[in-house]
Amino acid sequence: MSKKIGETMNRVFNFGAGPSAIPLEVLEEAQRELVDYKGEGLSVMEASHRSKMYDDIHTEAISMMRELYKIPDDYEVLLLQGGASLQFAMVPMNLSLGGKVQYVDSGSWSSKAIKEAKIQNLNFELVASSKETTYDRIPSNIEFDDDADYAYITSNNTIYGTGYKDYPTTKAPLVVDASSDIFSYPVDWSKIDLMFAGAQKNAGPSGLTIVIIKKELIDRVGESVPTILRYKTHADKNSLFHTPPTFGIYILNLILNWLKDNGGIEAIAQKNEAKAKLLYDAIDNSNGFYVGHAQKDSRSLMNVSYNIRNGGSENDAELEAKFVKEATEAGMIGLKGHRSIGGLRASIYNAMTMEGVQTLVDFMEQFQKENS
Amino acid sequence: MSKKIGETMNRVFNFGAGPSAIPLEVLEEAQRELVDYKGEGLSVMEASHRSKMYDDIHTEAISMMRELYKIPDDYEVLLLQGGASLQFAMVPMNLSLGGKVQYVDSGSWSSKAIKEAKIQNLNFELVASSKETTYDRIPSNIEFDDDADYAYITSNNTIYGTGYKDYPTTKAPLVVDASSDIFSYPVDWSKIDLMFAGAQKNAGPSGLTIVIIKKELIDRVGESVPTILRYKTHADKNSLFHTPPTFGIYILNLILNWLKDNGGIEAIAQKNEAKAKLLYDAIDNSNGFYVGHAQKDSRSLMNVSYNIRNGGSENDAELEAKFVKEATEAGMIGLKGHRSIGGLRASIYNAMTMEGVQTLVDFMEQFQKENS
Repeated sequence: MSKKIGETMNRVFNFGAGPSAIPLEVLEEAQRELVDYKGEGLSVMEASHRSKMYDDIHTEAISMMRELYKIPDDYEVLLLQGGASLQFAMVPMNLSLGGKVQYVDSGSWSSKAIKEAKIQNLNFELVASSKETTYDRIPSNIEFDDDADYAYITSNNTIYGTGYKDYPTTKAPLVVDASSDIFSYPVDWSKIDLMFAGAQKNAGPSGLTIVIIKKELIDRVGESVPTILRYKTHADKNSLFHTPPTFGIYILNLILNWLKDNGGIEAIAQKNEAKAKLLYDAIDNSNGFYVGHAQKDSRSLMNVSYNIRNGGSENDAELEAKFVKEATEAGMIGLKGHRSIGGLRASIYNAMTMEGVQTLVDFMEQFQKENS
Repeated sequence: MSKKIGETMNRVFNFGAGPSAIPLEVLEEAQRELVDYKGEGLSVMEASHRSKMYDDIHTEAISMMRELYKIPDDYEVLLLQGGASLQFAMVPMNLSLGGKVQYVDSGSWSSKAIKEAKIQNLNFELVASSKETTYDRIPSNIEFDDDADYAYITSNNTIYGTGYKDYPTTKAPLVVDASSDIFSYPVDWSKIDLMFAGAQKNAGPSGLTIVIIKKELIDRVGESVPTILRYKTHADKNSLFHTPPTFGIYILNLILNWLKDNGGIEAIAQKNEAKAKLLYDAIDNSNGFYVGHAQKDSRSLMNVSYNIRNGGSENDAELEAKFVKEATEAGMIGLKGHRSIGGLRASIYNAMTMEGVQTLVDFMEQFQKENS
């Protein structure tokens, strides 16, 4: 693992799906400040969540998010814990009014969200699914009812490498699980009523969850819901109802500053398009050596899931294993596909550099030459 | 804040109640490894929770906890999120069987736990309370019924500075909120059935929650409880059901290694006794200048809450404010009492050094000379 790559020296290129790469500049700043934050004489990890030192970080992270992601004033930004998995439970607890709730099933994470809605004994409706084609696309026939309590989608499907090009339009409040593509492109807030994301792909370390919710939805929650599981509780206290994951929020803030220094979300979106194009082109131009999992019009810009078929019609698991092994030796980690579909997966979140993707593409070409 | 104190150079003495001091050696190791963990070419924050690199940390943290805290084999150790506040909801969700649940109210955190039990519409019973004496003691008349679904106590009361000298004996499963004294003294597991703690006092950064639960209790949970809120879910997957707060667990593991290097929990308990004695003696020998909040037989070894009365019978809020200001200038932070009782509070968790307490005691004597 000590192989040197270009200018990054000992750093590997991390294509893992999450927790995943964090910009080197962010890690270096966190390292400099770890024992003594800006001369305060203590680490951010040690600071009271009621201290001015921490409050400045907390406040900046939220306002930076509002600025970069262009979040309208009628939305609350909440910093919570528990990951997307807790949101699968909190969304129905907070938004269900006893009417129907409608979901799209576009992959493993949608399925898990659906399972939790069913556990809560809601009036559940499946609106569309791509399960029958191994989730190789975003379903095309999505039509939510205007009177649903809420409508639910997963904007990017980490495992299957698919993503919405455009969010569905609906009068029902639209809930978006953006865990694997938050901050990767500008979004149209007029379509979104609640967005949530576990931080560990584009927004920081695991253990931090971002929720962006339209204010008018906050009061829906009933009094039988545990206090800590109400969005209202956190909105009323600016996410300081209890001790937030302070160090994770500090890293989030550093990442947001890094995003701003690099041109903001519009600029990162262009970079993400270019990175994805480079990689998908390499797959498409491999004469069937590499084959992408997702249909072309559903391709994710964050997770590129593909197989090695070596010109045949079946996946070559042996070559795939060899690819992962040799890539790892060459300093590219996290390329093994998720166990549910196997094959290869390159996660190319905001922090992945063009240099990293180019290195992977070069490796893919070389590997094909040696093994086809 | 740049005042130098003894050998600690720029580091302040952090008497904050939580998040709170972390051993300097731990922070320095985390700093060294932040960008490149043991030559792996990435930060712990960036590592997949399914990687061998992270798994080694996860496994070591759990086995280290078992070893140092002498946790019997018939208990599960879970690493969760959401802090004590989420446990206030999870405990009744997981342990209530529809019978009565019994609580002791010994302070603010007990009260919050009680509020959550009531929200869940349980057959709630208050067994004892020290509310009438401003929570200045652990109630003496605690008698739980054998047939309660569970019995609930808060082992240390951070705000009021009280702690149990011995846990009550009960046939009902005993639940202990040990958020502010976990790992600070050896415990008698034969009395405890579920212990939980937010990590941010003695065990790491905020955002990590430790739950130690007797295996026989894990199957109590009903199927209407959201998957993520069942202890069983996490026990079945070794706390890897979803992405755990990996960096927090890494810091926990460093802290546990530090504990071991310093003689384990028996040794830290002796050190904690000595630190507390030094501080309480300073209060008791001040001729009424300083007055402790807690009754002597209920005094916490972790949080020392006291007032300045300057020999009178009323607290002197002005002198207390002056004390906090001058102490901060002298490099001792976090000494302001909680807003609910005011006054002063010195939190002297495991990571607080004897040098830190001695520095505070010296300051207290000097302050008394100048202001009495």
